[in-house]
Amino acid sequence: MDQLQQHQFRSECPINFALEIFGDKWSLLIVRDMIFAGKSTYNDFLDSQEKIATNILASRLKMLEDMGIIQKERDPSLKTKTKYVYRLTPGGIDLIPLIVEIMLWSESRCPLGDELHAIVKRAHRDKQALIEDLRRSAKARKPLGIAGQ
Amino acid sequence: MDQLQQHQFRSECPINFALEIFGDKWSLLIVRDMIFAGKSTYNDFLDSQEKIATNILASRLKMLEDMGIIQKERDPSLKTKTKYVYRLTPGGIDLIPLIVEIMLWSESRCPLGDELHAIVKRAHRDKQALIEDLRRSAKARKPLGIAGQ
Repeated sequence: MDQLQQHQFRSECPINFALEIFGDKWSLLIVRDMIFAGKSTYNDFLDSQEKIATNILASRLKMLEDMGIIQKERDPSLKTKTKYVYRLTPGGIDLIPLIVEIMLWSESRCPLGDELHAIVKRAHRDKQALIEDLRRSAKARKPLGIAGQ
Repeated sequence: MDQLQQHQFRSECPINFALEIFGDKWSLLIVRDMIFAGKSTYNDFLDSQEKIATNILASRLKMLEDMGIIQKERDPSLKTKTKYVYRLTPGGIDLIPLIVEIMLWSESRCPLGDELHAIVKRAHRDKQALIEDLRRSAKARKPLGIAGQ
């Protein structure tokens, strides 16, 4: 969290604080991929439908790590030393309610696939239960069931 | 909403949909200023603590208008014909739960002034009641009580 403490924010507003951290078109897609699709590697994120460019992905991963939203770990299951996996920190997992609200704002305004439709229906039925399920699956590093690709 | 319909989105994901509309460091600050501070004019927005540049403000207002989040109206109270006021549309007012979640995510991570502290406390006590109050005040075009400057 050193980078976060060193960052000079434009104001003391909490909305501004968040936007300076993840207010861009890509950062929350990476978080989405981790929450909903259980993605964890650089190549996983590259592979998503929105086709993030490699330089943008690298800079967003570094920023999310610097800001304490994700953490980078050497993947014990891989032999090459350059392979890392990314995990949500508790601060990253705390973004779940916000991601759910973004989904709910969009759902009546854009087309949804069947799988997403089911998730949105669950959110309407019991938002808190869905958030808790997503928290549990994010902590367990397992996807809940909608994919980012 | 014509501009919205013409926009080519990168994917059909509802998270991506929202980020393509307001995923930047400024757009939600304008919405924040309208929700919490009752701001409505170009000069009001320019005057906020984060010091948005005029060209960025103009482009974000146009984009928010094109995307159906705000509407521009000629201000009947002013004599000059170039003076406009901006109002949240129902789609803009629907951003309130999302803005509240952003505030709640940030609140334990950044310093808060006294006035904001009171709002956050209300959100913890009864989030839904706060959201309804903010909706009512946004519809009535009156600030609830925290300022964007």
